[in-house]
Amino acid sequence: MAWLECVPNVSEGRDARALDRMTARLSQAPGVRLLDVHRDADHHRSVFTLVGEAPALTEALLGLCDEALGAIDLRHHRGAHPRIGAVDVVPFVPLGRATMDEAVAAARATGRAIAERFGIPVFLYEEAATAPHRRRLEQVRRGRFEGLAGKLRTPEWAPDFGPASPHPSFGAVAVGARRILVAYNINLATDRLEIGTAIAAAVRASSGGLPHVKAMALPLPARGLIQVSMNLTDVNITPLAVVFDTVAREAARHGVAVAESEVVGLVPAAALADVAARYLRVAGWSPDKILDTRLLPD
Amino acid sequence: MAWLECVPNVSEGRDARALDRMTARLSQAPGVRLLDVHRDADHHRSVFTLVGEAPALTEALLGLCDEALGAIDLRHHRGAHPRIGAVDVVPFVPLGRATMDEAVAAARATGRAIAERFGIPVFLYEEAATAPHRRRLEQVRRGRFEGLAGKLRTPEWAPDFGPASPHPSFGAVAVGARRILVAYNINLATDRLEIGTAIAAAVRASSGGLPHVKAMALPLPARGLIQVSMNLTDVNITPLAVVFDTVAREAARHGVAVAESEVVGLVPAAALADVAARYLRVAGWSPDKILDTRLLPD
Repeated sequence: MAWLECVPNVSEGRDARALDRMTARLSQAPGVRLLDVHRDADHHRSVFTLVGEAPALTEALLGLCDEALGAIDLRHHRGAHPRIGAVDVVPFVPLGRATMDEAVAAARATGRAIAERFGIPVFLYEEAATAPHRRRLEQVRRGRFEGLAGKLRTPEWAPDFGPASPHPSFGAVAVGARRILVAYNINLATDRLEIGTAIAAAVRASSGGLPHVKAMALPLPARGLIQVSMNLTDVNITPLAVVFDTVAREAARHGVAVAESEVVGLVPAAALADVAARYLRVAGWSPDKILDTRLLPD
Repeated sequence: MAWLECVPNVSEGRDARALDRMTARLSQAPGVRLLDVHRDADHHRSVFTLVGEAPALTEALLGLCDEALGAIDLRHHRGAHPRIGAVDVVPFVPLGRATMDEAVAAARATGRAIAERFGIPVFLYEEAATAPHRRRLEQVRRGRFEGLAGKLRTPEWAPDFGPASPHPSFGAVAVGARRILVAYNINLATDRLEIGTAIAAAVRASSGGLPHVKAMALPLPARGLIQVSMNLTDVNITPLAVVFDTVAREAARHGVAVAESEVVGLVPAAALADVAARYLRVAGWSPDKILDTRLLPD
């Protein structure tokens, strides 16, 4: 059986003790490796990166949902990032020789198990979606936690598993399968949200920007910055360096500088190596030149 | 037993059939993986990147020396790169949990086997060296193939294994153990060797330049370029981006542009990711964020 990556996003980025308990639960889950924990107080959200085989990941996710049920009440949750659930999104990603079919099967098995164990409504999304209008995560999450009760009553948004009403404190969860992506944020040295919103619109694929780029703007009030928060869903087509250069150029048009950027979770070596190869003007660059990648089993 | 990288450099970069035979021989060697072959006609030199356990690497190297003996006669070899042997340099590098002691043991076993099988003089260098003055490869190679007979007659340069006279066509071979390095060349848009020589002197550690940088300048006459050919022996201390920026700045002082750069063999993901993280201004960057690296067994 092949390895999958699983990257659950949890609607808690501030309570260190709650996050420590979730981290401990995932660290101790048999058969999985917890590779990264990304805590974000502004988003009020954290991202865990796990790898393992499908059954072990399903068990680990049940443990995470159990912790989140005890720790998170979305009725009192305010954060910059859209969300529908305490555990909000659970994508499965095929690694190495694993296939998308295996990731889809893992998503369905995990969604079913979460619904059965905890009575939480589950939407399957992207490659695991059961209808075309339910593929895009933005659509699944539209209306957020606050609009979930009404949404679940419509026939188009009946849950794939679990009850047709939100869990009172947990909400619902989107479980899906997708290709690997780079979650990448650029923080701008401005506190004017409208500039970030304009830049996000300029780079976002869905409004005619860069292919395979999802983008939204969020305020980071504690730091006085605006963040363009992005998912880069195919860095072979729209490379990381092109995204950075485009945001920096758009920001400059507004007289704003890039303060810093941020990688959420783990990044494939090839995506970063491509940035380096461009900067260093490496002739005939190929990701086959990355030692770490070549040492991985096929 | 742990994996070692072995990066033999061969004094043949032009005869495709001879290189194909060497490549085939290494590809078929049991227990090793041939990860990369870098052919360079200007240097008249090729670099093979192998990984495997020590005994399998020793056997693979004996096969490579056998092919090189049949294919290369250094009495007729003219190339831009200094060399003492048909197989010129054979470094062993510990990977993952492998230790430098294991790499040193592999270098000594391989050097002894080459001397016994083929009657070729062998110098042990760097971490495998048997005396301080024999550690640095530049010292071992000083005098080149043409000066080898005289050098081998001096007591300071008695071979570690094999006869005290060069093999007539093969010369001698330097077998060593070292930490991982980045072999990195920058090609300048000039045909004036003295500019490359001045830049190499400016960046080279031994003449007061950047720590852990070895550099020399070579002409690439077929392309009308000058190459600054470097070994970066600790990119944690002198990062790849600093080397590139320094060479580009020195070149600009001479009114010369960087045409392109070149990576020889494979590069650790972290070295390239560091360049990307600087360019992208990633806050709190750590190589622990590289997925491929994290997926390797400890």
